[in-house]
Formats: sequence, C-alpha cells, structure tokens
Amino acid sequence: MKVDGVAMRTIWPLEGRCVGIIDQTRLPHELVVVILKTLEDAAIAIQSMKVRGAPLIGAAAAYGVALAMAEDATDQGLESAVRRLGTTRPTAVNLHWALENMRRILLATAQDERCRVSWEAAEAVAEDDVRLNKAIGRHGLELIKARARADHKAVQILTHCNAGWLATVDAGTATAPVYAAHDAGVPVHVWVDETRPRNQGASLTAWELQQHGVPHTVIVDNCGGHLMQHGLIDLVIVGTDRTTATGDVANKIGTYLKALAAFDNAIPFYVALPSPTIDWTLSDGVSSIPIEQRDPKEVTHVQGRAPNGEILSVQVTPDGSPAANYGFDVTPSRLITGLITERGVCAASREGLLSLFPEKREAQP
Amino acid sequence: MKVDGVAMRTIWPLEGRCVGIIDQTRLPHELVVVILKTLEDAAIAIQSMKVRGAPLIGAAAAYGVALAMAEDATDQGLESAVRRLGTTRPTAVNLHWALENMRRILLATAQDERCRVSWEAAEAVAEDDVRLNKAIGRHGLELIKARARADHKAVQILTHCNAGWLATVDAGTATAPVYAAHDAGVPVHVWVDETRPRNQGASLTAWELQQHGVPHTVIVDNCGGHLMQHGLIDLVIVGTDRTTATGDVANKIGTYLKALAAFDNAIPFYVALPSPTIDWTLSDGVSSIPIEQRDPKEVTHVQGRAPNGEILSVQVTPDGSPAANYGFDVTPSRLITGLITERGVCAASREGLLSLFPEKREAQP
Repeated sequence: MKVDGVAMRTIWPLEGRCVGIIDQTRLPHELVVVILKTLEDAAIAIQSMKVRGAPLIGAAAAYGVALAMAEDATDQGLESAVRRLGTTRPTAVNLHWALENMRRILLATAQDERCRVSWEAAEAVAEDDVRLNKAIGRHGLELIKARARADHKAVQILTHCNAGWLATVDAGTATAPVYAAHDAGVPVHVWVDETRPRNQGASLTAWELQQHGVPHTVIVDNCGGHLMQHGLIDLVIVGTDRTTATGDVANKIGTYLKALAAFDNAIPFYVALPSPTIDWTLSDGVSSIPIEQRDPKEVTHVQGRAPNGEILSVQVTPDGSPAANYGFDVTPSRLITGLITERGVCAASREGLLSLFPEKREAQP
Repeated sequence: MKVDGVAMRTIWPLEGRCVGIIDQTRLPHELVVVILKTLEDAAIAIQSMKVRGAPLIGAAAAYGVALAMAEDATDQGLESAVRRLGTTRPTAVNLHWALENMRRILLATAQDERCRVSWEAAEAVAEDDVRLNKAIGRHGLELIKARARADHKAVQILTHCNAGWLATVDAGTATAPVYAAHDAGVPVHVWVDETRPRNQGASLTAWELQQHGVPHTVIVDNCGGHLMQHGLIDLVIVGTDRTTATGDVANKIGTYLKALAAFDNAIPFYVALPSPTIDWTLSDGVSSIPIEQRDPKEVTHVQGRAPNGEILSVQVTPDGSPAANYGFDVTPSRLITGLITERGVCAASREGLLSLFPEKREAQP
C-alpha cells in the first residue's frame, strides 16, 4: 500500500540477492528500512519483531532460507537454516509452515540449483500472500458497499489490532476490504482500537491507514461498546491467528469483547482470513486453542515517544504489583456474522467453511 | 485503608484549620501529601486532579468552603467560594451537591459561627461518605462469602477503573466489599483492569490494593473476557458515576464490555453505589445520560515512569492520527446481577431500588 504517496510492501527482493524490510519496531515514529543480507539478518529481524504478523513472518522465513542458500546450499546448510529460523518465534504457525515448505522444495532440488530455486520459492510465498489478501479485499468490498449510505457519508468500520498490510506482505487481511473500498471511492472511516498491551492498533494500523490516506480515529479498547450503542459503527472487521473448522477464531486479546458488543447491538461482525489460518482439526476454539502468556512487562510498561523525541518505555503500574498478559482470546462462531476468505464470504460454521472449501469435507469427522 | 501498614484516608483535617490530602497525580510512583491552607489550594487540588473520584471531590469541596470561611465568612465570601470551587470540575455531580449543601447550611448560620460550622459540616460530609462505604462493604462481603470456596482458595474478583478508597474518603465503593472480605480473613484475589485511557486501575487500584496487602494482578482492559471464558473470575464488582432509577449505570468507559462478558459467561456482575449516585429522574441510561468527551491527548499519550525515574508522557500514536476519548459508557440494567447500596443489595431495576428506598416511590412516574 502507499507510504508517503509511494507504493510499498513490507518485504521485497533487492538486487544482489538482498531483501528489504520495514523495521516495524520503529513505527509509527520513524520509517526505517533494513536490508537483510544473511540468514542471521533474517533470523534477528523475525526474532526482534522488526517483521511481525503471521503471513509476513512466513514470507520473511522463506526469504531467510533463500539468503541461507547463497551462503551454504548443502543439506546441512539447509537443515541448519531451517533450525535457526524455527527458533525465532516458536509458536508462529506460518513460520513453521513456510520453513517446512521451503525445506521440502529444496531437498528435492539439486544443490547447485538451490540458490535460484529458493529465491523463486520465497517470491512465490510472498506473491501468494498478496493474491489471497487481494481476493479477501474484493469479497469484503461487497460487504462494505452493502452498508454504503445514500447520503455518501463514510461507512464506519471498527477494527482491532493490526491485521493490516504491515502484518502481511501487502494489503492486509482485515484491512484489505477497507483499502479496496477506499481505492474504489466508497467512503470509509475506520475506528482503530489501540490494542493494548502492544498497541499494534495505535502504532501500526493508524500509521498505515494514515499513510494510505484512509480517514480513521484511534480509540482505547474500552470505547467500542459505547460507539456501537450509539450507532457510530456500521460493521466490524478483524483478523484471526487461528480458525477452527467450526468457525471459532483466536485473535488478539479483546476481540471477543468487541464481538459481544457487536452482537448485543446487532452490528455485523466479520473476520477476514486467508484459508491457511483454518485448522481443520479443531472443533471448539475456547477449549482447544492454547492461549500464549507473554511477558508481563508488556502490561506494566508502555512504549512511546518521549517529549525529547526518544523512544522509550514508561512504567504505568506500582513497583511490585504483578501483571498477567494473555496474548489472544477466542471468539465463538455464534457471535460472528461471517468469515471473509479468499474464496468468498461464508457463515462461521463447519457447513459455511465447507461450502467454500469442499475438498476438506472428507477430512471432517 | 492501610498505606505501608498505617491507616490513612484520602483527606483529613489537621491542626490549625488545614487539610491534608494525598496528591493522586503522583501515584503510584510516589506518595506525596499536600497541605491545603486556603480556598485556592483546595480549588487547585480539585482542578488538577490531585484529588479525584466523585465522593472525594465532594468532601474536598466541602473542606474548600471551610477553608474559605476562615478567610472571609461574609455572604459575598461564601458565594465567591462556591463559585470558585464550582468551576473546578464542571461535570462532577457530587461537587455541586456538596457545594449547595454547604451554601444552604452556612447561609442559615450567623457570620461569626460560619468558620466553626463549616468545618463541622465538611467533617460530616467526609464521615457520611465513610459510613456509606462501610455499609456497602458489609453488604458486599456477604456476596463474596457466598462465593467462597470450600478449599479456601481465593475468590476471584474483577474490577474496572478505581472505585477504591482513593476515589472516596475511605474504603471505596467497589473495593469496600473486597477490603471487608480481606480484613475478615476471606481470601480474595482482584483482577485489576488497567482502565485506559487514564489508567486509574493500573496506577491507583493496584497501588491501594498492594498497600493494604490484598493479592491482585493487573491486566489490560482486553483481557477480562478471556479470563471469564476460562472460569478464572468468580464475580465482578464495579462502581458507578450515575445510576438511573431503573438500574442502568454510567461508569468508566469499558464497563459495558465487561458486563457483556460476565453475562455471556453467567458470572455475577455487581455495581457498588452509595445512593447519592442514583438519579431518580432518569429511566433510560443509554439515551439520557450524556457522555463527556475528554482531551484526545489522554488516548494518544500515556503517562508513566521513565527508566531514569522521571514521570512523563509518551506518545503512542503517529503524528496526525486523530483520536476520540469518550469518558464513560452505560451498562444496561439487564446485564447487572445486583446493586450493592448502603441499605443492602437489590435487583438492578426500579422495583429493586424502590424496595430499598421506598421513600422515593411517590416521586416515581
């Protein structure tokens, strides 16, 4: 999407077998581009969350393997690269999927071809992601158009966390319909949940919407229910980290609360998801999806820009008060109006998903 | 309640017609006591939110009038003091109630008696607040005892914002049952919503629970729904700024989302309220209670302690991204299990409230 008027992606190949990325730890205060030249550069970029978001992590890992193949294209070099990259974010499903995919392709490739083939395979991972997101955008656009007003006032959309282009290679998942609408001249306004504790909404979603020129307003996570009670939100679109075969979704902590409020106020609540996030083996999200607990320091401290321009963390709690930090929650399918996938929009149910992905039917219980 | 082992209140009379307060803008990082000697000292303390919380503001305003009477006990002096204090927090209902009460008493008092009478009246306002809160504590204690476990594990209580002793003269409203249980040896553990944007949970509720020795854990506002889904919360107790005659409550923004989650998980959701917060003229909270919009800077910036010990605000949003800041939301009575008042616990309904306050029946439509 656009940054300062120029089209940009989160990760891109450069001349001389290097890879460019945006250092997302410096956003929203600075746009810093980092050049990855080695396997270790890629590993550190993922580990330190310079790149984050499930699809982008997958693409970065694929490029990391390609960088490794330029260093050492032996079987040993490949296994060692996959191992190194696999330790960077142990719980990221896309990371392991991307690494396994690269490993399979390259083990079937002659050693002297691995450098070229790995590069092409990494580009394919990135392009596939963009293709899925653009398709989600097209399908979601129709939902937004259906809420467009005769008076041409903006359609009011709430989103949570960053399921934006910064979490993917381009376009994003939850934001793909928003960008599609904006680019098609359908007026939209996005209410951006700041998304404590890591503030991905305030720091990333707000930044990318602003850069692309999409009208938006940042709110605290507590605010959405009030807006819905007063008719200030037309629909909600969020992303998901993991989706059960029955349409339950695990997404950033707090998503469930917004789904409850949307349901209570009869406001459509959609989840945008590329089909790789569907775990066809799971039926009950609340009981079966393990929820990661993260460093309590993300709760007790908040990062931002100090008056002197320095980026630093301030402590908001008393010394010695403990904090707990659950990363995700599960929104049950009964609260979800529909799932926006690359193949179209369906009900959040086993039958809904199977209507779009009939090839999964035989694997179902 | 206790601070570092010693009983303390938020406001207290001192020898020589002065008043001590805790400067709450310095919490949780520093305990600073400020001595108010003049009307202007009291006005600035309220205006700059050194004292905050509806009941405490009322008590501080009453003491402010008493300080003014030592300076100028004429009718003109009284009117001027009431006017000055009335401008400090224009939307605070208790402030205006306390000022009107003091004005009425003092206009009926001879000028040379006003200094003594105003002092006694201010002390009465403070003592009344403590008496109401202690009664709420006794009634709420029974609710907590009813959830106490045979295995003597702690009863898990969620609270939002600070309806603690720091918001009152002592004991607090939502916290009164918690302190009563803790002091009675009923084990409790409190999940403290940080309560963005002003973080009163993280900075004030956590501090006062810690000082009194009550086990607690700070969480982001997004977290409560997940905890409830997983059986980690036994009951919710919050405060209220304004309660309709039908039992709807306006409280800190985000309260409604927690009530929805409690309802969805069949967890009791109680609101603690001294009866002065009931507005007997209102029937529908969502449509009739105006919701204050505050400075967007409270959303875009977060205050805390920097690594060098300095208290400062950091900006979490991109330059130029707008923010909106709604201060409160309304929780409809249908989501509320019961109201804990100084006269007992009742259903959140007109009949429930009238069963405890029958003298209000004839004023009802």
